[in-house]
Amino acid sequence: MKQAFVDIRNRTQAICFLLSIEDHVVQPVVDVSPPKWHLAHTTWFFEAFVLQAFVKDYKPFNPQFFYLFNSYYEGMGERVGREQRGAMSRPGVEEVLAYRAYVDAQMKAALNSGTLPQEALRRVWIGLNHEQQHQELLLTDIKFILGNQPFLPEYHKDFVEFQTLPKEFGMLDIEEGLYSIGHSGEGFAFDNEKLAHKVWLDDFSIALRPVHQLEYLEFIDDGGYLNHRLWLAEGWDLVQHQGLKAPMHWHWNKEEDQWMYYSLGGLKPLNAQSPVAHLSYYEADAYARWAGKRLPKEVEWEVAARLFPQHFPLHGWVWEWTQSAYLPYPGFAVDAGALGEYNGKFMSGQMVLRGGSAATPEGHSRITYRNFFHPHLRWQFSGLRLAQ
Amino acid sequence: MKQAFVDIRNRTQAICFLLSIEDHVVQPVVDVSPPKWHLAHTTWFFEAFVLQAFVKDYKPFNPQFFYLFNSYYEGMGERVGREQRGAMSRPGVEEVLAYRAYVDAQMKAALNSGTLPQEALRRVWIGLNHEQQHQELLLTDIKFILGNQPFLPEYHKDFVEFQTLPKEFGMLDIEEGLYSIGHSGEGFAFDNEKLAHKVWLDDFSIALRPVHQLEYLEFIDDGGYLNHRLWLAEGWDLVQHQGLKAPMHWHWNKEEDQWMYYSLGGLKPLNAQSPVAHLSYYEADAYARWAGKRLPKEVEWEVAARLFPQHFPLHGWVWEWTQSAYLPYPGFAVDAGALGEYNGKFMSGQMVLRGGSAATPEGHSRITYRNFFHPHLRWQFSGLRLAQ
Amino acid sequence: MKQAFVDIRNRTQAICFLLSIEDHVVQPVVDVSPPKWHLAHTTWFFEAFVLQAFVKDYKPFNPQFFYLFNSYYEGMGERVGREQRGAMSRPGVEEVLAYRAYVDAQMKAALNSGTLPQEALRRVWIGLNHEQQHQELLLTDIKFILGNQPFLPEYHKDFVEFQTLPKEFGMLDIEEGLYSIGHSGEGFAFDNEKLAHKVWLDDFSIALRPVHQLEYLEFIDDGGYLNHRLWLAEGWDLVQHQGLKAPMHWHWNKEEDQWMYYSLGGLKPLNAQSPVAHLSYYEADAYARWAGKRLPKEVEWEVAARLFPQHFPLHGWVWEWTQSAYLPYPGFAVDAGALGEYNGKFMSGQMVLRGGSAATPEGHSRITYRNFFHPHLRWQFSGLRLAQ
Amino acid sequence: MKQAFVDIRNRTQAICFLLSIEDHVVQPVVDVSPPKWHLAHTTWFFEAFVLQAFVKDYKPFNPQFFYLFNSYYEGMGERVGREQRGAMSRPGVEEVLAYRAYVDAQMKAALNSGTLPQEALRRVWIGLNHEQQHQELLLTDIKFILGNQPFLPEYHKDFVEFQTLPKEFGMLDIEEGLYSIGHSGEGFAFDNEKLAHKVWLDDFSIALRPVHQLEYLEFIDDGGYLNHRLWLAEGWDLVQHQGLKAPMHWHWNKEEDQWMYYSLGGLKPLNAQSPVAHLSYYEADAYARWAGKRLPKEVEWEVAARLFPQHFPLHGWVWEWTQSAYLPYPGFAVDAGALGEYNGKFMSGQMVLRGGSAATPEGHSRITYRNFFHPHLRWQFSGLRLAQ
Repeated sequence: MKQAFVDIRNRTQAICFLLSIEDHVVQPVVDVSPPKWHLAHTTWFFEAFVLQAFVKDYKPFNPQFFYLFNSYYEGMGERVGREQRGAMSRPGVEEVLAYRAYVDAQMKAALNSGTLPQEALRRVWIGLNHEQQHQELLLTDIKFILGNQPFLPEYHKDFVEFQTLPKEFGMLDIEEGLYSIGHSGEGFAFDNEKLAHKVWLDDFSIALRPVHQLEYLEFIDDGGYLNHRLWLAEGWDLVQHQGLKAPMHWHWNKEEDQWMYYSLGGLKPLNAQSPVAHLSYYEADAYARWAGKRLPKEVEWEVAARLFPQHFPLHGWVWEWTQSAYLPYPGFAVDAGALGEYNGKFMSGQMVLRGGSAATPEGHSRITYRNFFHPHLRWQFSGLRLAQ
Repeated sequence: MKQAFVDIRNRTQAICFLLSIEDHVVQPVVDVSPPKWHLAHTTWFFEAFVLQAFVKDYKPFNPQFFYLFNSYYEGMGERVGREQRGAMSRPGVEEVLAYRAYVDAQMKAALNSGTLPQEALRRVWIGLNHEQQHQELLLTDIKFILGNQPFLPEYHKDFVEFQTLPKEFGMLDIEEGLYSIGHSGEGFAFDNEKLAHKVWLDDFSIALRPVHQLEYLEFIDDGGYLNHRLWLAEGWDLVQHQGLKAPMHWHWNKEEDQWMYYSLGGLKPLNAQSPVAHLSYYEADAYARWAGKRLPKEVEWEVAARLFPQHFPLHGWVWEWTQSAYLPYPGFAVDAGALGEYNGKFMSGQMVLRGGSAATPEGHSRITYRNFFHPHLRWQFSGLRLAQ
Repeated sequence: MKQAFVDIRNRTQAICFLLSIEDHVVQPVVDVSPPKWHLAHTTWFFEAFVLQAFVKDYKPFNPQFFYLFNSYYEGMGERVGREQRGAMSRPGVEEVLAYRAYVDAQMKAALNSGTLPQEALRRVWIGLNHEQQHQELLLTDIKFILGNQPFLPEYHKDFVEFQTLPKEFGMLDIEEGLYSIGHSGEGFAFDNEKLAHKVWLDDFSIALRPVHQLEYLEFIDDGGYLNHRLWLAEGWDLVQHQGLKAPMHWHWNKEEDQWMYYSLGGLKPLNAQSPVAHLSYYEADAYARWAGKRLPKEVEWEVAARLFPQHFPLHGWVWEWTQSAYLPYPGFAVDAGALGEYNGKFMSGQMVLRGGSAATPEGHSRITYRNFFHPHLRWQFSGLRLAQ
Repeated sequence: MKQAFVDIRNRTQAICFLLSIEDHVVQPVVDVSPPKWHLAHTTWFFEAFVLQAFVKDYKPFNPQFFYLFNSYYEGMGERVGREQRGAMSRPGVEEVLAYRAYVDAQMKAALNSGTLPQEALRRVWIGLNHEQQHQELLLTDIKFILGNQPFLPEYHKDFVEFQTLPKEFGMLDIEEGLYSIGHSGEGFAFDNEKLAHKVWLDDFSIALRPVHQLEYLEFIDDGGYLNHRLWLAEGWDLVQHQGLKAPMHWHWNKEEDQWMYYSLGGLKPLNAQSPVAHLSYYEADAYARWAGKRLPKEVEWEVAARLFPQHFPLHGWVWEWTQSAYLPYPGFAVDAGALGEYNGKFMSGQMVLRGGSAATPEGHSRITYRNFFHPHLRWQFSGLRLAQ
């Protein structure tokens, strides 16, 4: 665990290494947090839930940080409003890095001491998985921050967002039957993935890869954004009020008369090797309807992924919107303390995504992993795979 | 069918009979439509989908009404913005009643002629069920309109909202197994209830009646609206921003130092014979958590209702929030034309309610019936039943 | 005074006589009040400020009306939110007319009794002038209510909005000097017109009539709504965000390829006999800049109107925006009681208009009369006259 | 002029010298701009209006900056939305300082060359006065940025905001008569101060110093924020909706049970040597009404300041709200080009302030100087002086 702690904590800072100080501070929209805030908040997690709780006489780096870097845990007291994160210039990046160093040293000492009880170790694992989730958010927030500036600066010119999709297309057929989904047994999993339980599935088919950029372009060229019949009512409202014409991070290039894709490696032409990403649920759903198919349910996705793991990599492609609302599994139970606020209280109004993206740390996602976002959001690497 | 047509059409007008002209016109919030609008819109439905489509040389009562009384059918052309319905003083109530009379006469002639094709008759059934849905909305909109006025006028002093709940409380146990839910076979059903399909259910229990007003009062008295741990995050936001302290239509009586319930029959003391109603999904969910239980899923509700129909009346108690998002059943397919917009396009962001209320026309609801609303809405007769 | 009381009270009802019951109820935007509300509020004024205050043992028609029909007098207690006026279907038109009859009878008895003290009579005069102000609002609110409906119903086909403008155009020259403006002496005037005081004016010229519709059309045809250089910054924001292209109540007629003017007498072609009306201050100001001139100050207007009364009728043309903010005159003092809230507390953010319109009751306006509205508002008969 | 150029440009950077990089970037509310933006925008002004216009073959530092650092000049093309200034992390502080150095070098060369035409030199003076205005905004924006953070960091512990007010209080009496106000003759002045013109004033008195913090505290302690009779209607709305209880930057100290004042030098107790600042127009007006007096008009202020210059310092106390709307002087004319957008287009909805604050560069303000802000704004050093 200690090695995992070191590796994961270091990787968070590595992600920010390419940023200017100024990039660490800004919050262009409320959903995006400043990178500096991620650096601090992930540290606060260990301080609040492990060091404060289990290390005798622990002296916090700065007691004010409890107020500044709490994200949403009501049980942990007052906090800065989410929309005000980008207004906090203090503490600066340097002090936040000192905060990280201080907490890391304390954590390592605690881990080395061998005296942490089981509950503390359980929380360390949650903290590390939590930090990996923020690593993904860091990359997508950075992409939004840079991609929102008029001149589209690159994060790093060699950054490759996607592993190459297979050329062939085809549907995998799965027979009706009683299947088991959800997480049981050894290994870390979030509370929302538990417990394994039975589901009945009718016959269904699911594509062997996600939809790629050129396929999605066909939908646009066919008037997909102009045809109300393809859209859920709330999606059609968004299309009209926001004037949507393409996924987020697609830019119309007037000179070349074509759509370009802004990636963390800069502006690129569309291609068939890259899954379409940065879709809202509504766009994914409309595309599927246009294609005469539908989105898979999360249970279908999981059953198919167990049967054909080679077609469902958990890193390198995209998160895939499913037709399943984010709701509790049978027997779902939350923790008693503030950590009980981790997942359960968000179980309304969001849809489940399955899979994993280039921004997902390797080894972080699982076949049972339930990612979730509100259906209108587009700043994640969110794409789709067809089912029928 | 002709008798059903006459009965249902008459009942809509009967509901409005107790209103003043002025009551027909107002729209206090965007979710509530003026009664005059309901009278006209339900008529427009028959004109647009039956008479215009199937009666040769049909002459519309007033072609402008196609613009005025379309609710949301994009396929039927432009329409008045929903929030502007209460700004339309013209046509007046008298002209709307003339419109109803004209269309009724035309419809009766068409039905008598025996020349309407099967598709037209199918649409008449949809239109009648549609009108019954608006009868329920009429009553709840009227309740909002009157209950929103400072002096709480009665709709009718003898109006009784609820059939008496049984005194005893208990849980019905249902064994795990493969069950069938959804509508197949004869009889009218909406597209969203079809088709029957198999689901696996683990063991569960469900209460033999909905929660009553005094039970809900205990939740309030126990600080239910003050304890964030009981609430979904979006619900807690609502509680705080809107200062919620009790269900809609509950009024604090300073003189008697107690909550009173505004019913269509006037202000009444709380009692154990009446199910709690006018809850948001968030309130229903918080109550269930406080009670150490949960809301049932819609499949559980339906399975239980088939096994114990005597405990699940479809008229006279309340609509019951379920823990199921409103999503398509396996194999769900929408109509090709504008009627295809009836249900499917609303399948995001809403939760399913099962059952039926005092405002539900008798015979309208079914054991497979899927009602749905956004989770924050409270102006319907929406309550809950516990499960675990 | 008794005759004035009877005449003015009757005229208010006469204005509403052409309306349907439904027209009395609606409130399409927050600035517009339902006609029913005007009928009741003007009555409330006499009840609250005269009968309650000076008639011993006065028994109110309905004590709840004190809450319902107070407009903005904080000193008179709680009141219904302005935006909720159109949600109050109760009391209905019939009851409101009964309220008027009751209060009128009480008022006539009090006036006949000869026992009302001087302060009461002063308030009756204020109440009558107040009611005349509401008569103007009634007509402009009715125009908005009808003109906001898709099919533009007429108020009365013979209603003529404007007295004919003179054909000739010319500028009246006025020499620099020390002038007196403001109201002193006998006759009714509002507190905001008092007292007469001296002002120094440099040489200026002012047009002998307001701008007419065809002149304003030239501004439109010359791209006036497209050229930011002509606009105040806040006006240009409005033009862009609301897509303004013409004054309120102008409608583009596709068939005839021309602008039409919706009047209370129905849709009419533009003409040179009618002053342009329904302009915001920003539009009036932009027009003046386009014309190489400016708006007059209110002191210039008043001085010119004293010198050339024949060119400044106070009824029948339009209210004219001036380049003067609505601020207190030297020595302005407000009443001690709730009537002190009549004018003074609105002295921020509004601009003064001078003159009078077809909707202004004859004899109501004066050469010293200060009308005032926020600069973005357009639903009044507001036009302009050039100065330089 | 060259020395002035060097001094003023250096002072802007000196103001920012105490900030962290992070402080340069944030924009907590739309009215506040990031310090980095001020540094760049003041530089853009010289590049756009002088170098581009008058220096042959001038090569811009970065052509994209024309888009990024234009504030509101429509005539200069598209620009970043004001609310997005805080989302632009690029260019960073270092690059902005390089931009300043580049433009400064080019400007010095041009000024040394002796070839700049008169119009160019006129614009340099405007640019320097413009930069001084931004120096004041820089300090007030910095105060907002720091004062908005939960732990109230100091800008510099020795920063003194106010020069000491005289202890005595008294009114200066000024006789009625024809006075001249406005700017004519030599010396720089903005277009909005011109031209000198005559005004008639009645007898009036004006206080010999602004209101101090302890006097304003009496108003609070007397329930000033609770008494609607003291407030303009729009002010009372603000008080209620925003829960105002004291000026901006006043903080209630629970431990000491008293109000404290956050200054750029840190949190201080209230005292009688410091003028009250950070008032909205509504607060200043309510205070004056409570004190049985009124705000002065700008013409009164200017006449008094000419007669008693010793009582009207233009640096070191506060900007004083006047009872005058910001409107054009007689004969006001704007420039033909984009610089014509400097002042004139803001002449609606704002009130004039006279005087100068500790943040005003010495020598920048004048007795004829017209500062202006919307009446609800409080983040400037805005106080008041009584008149009657």
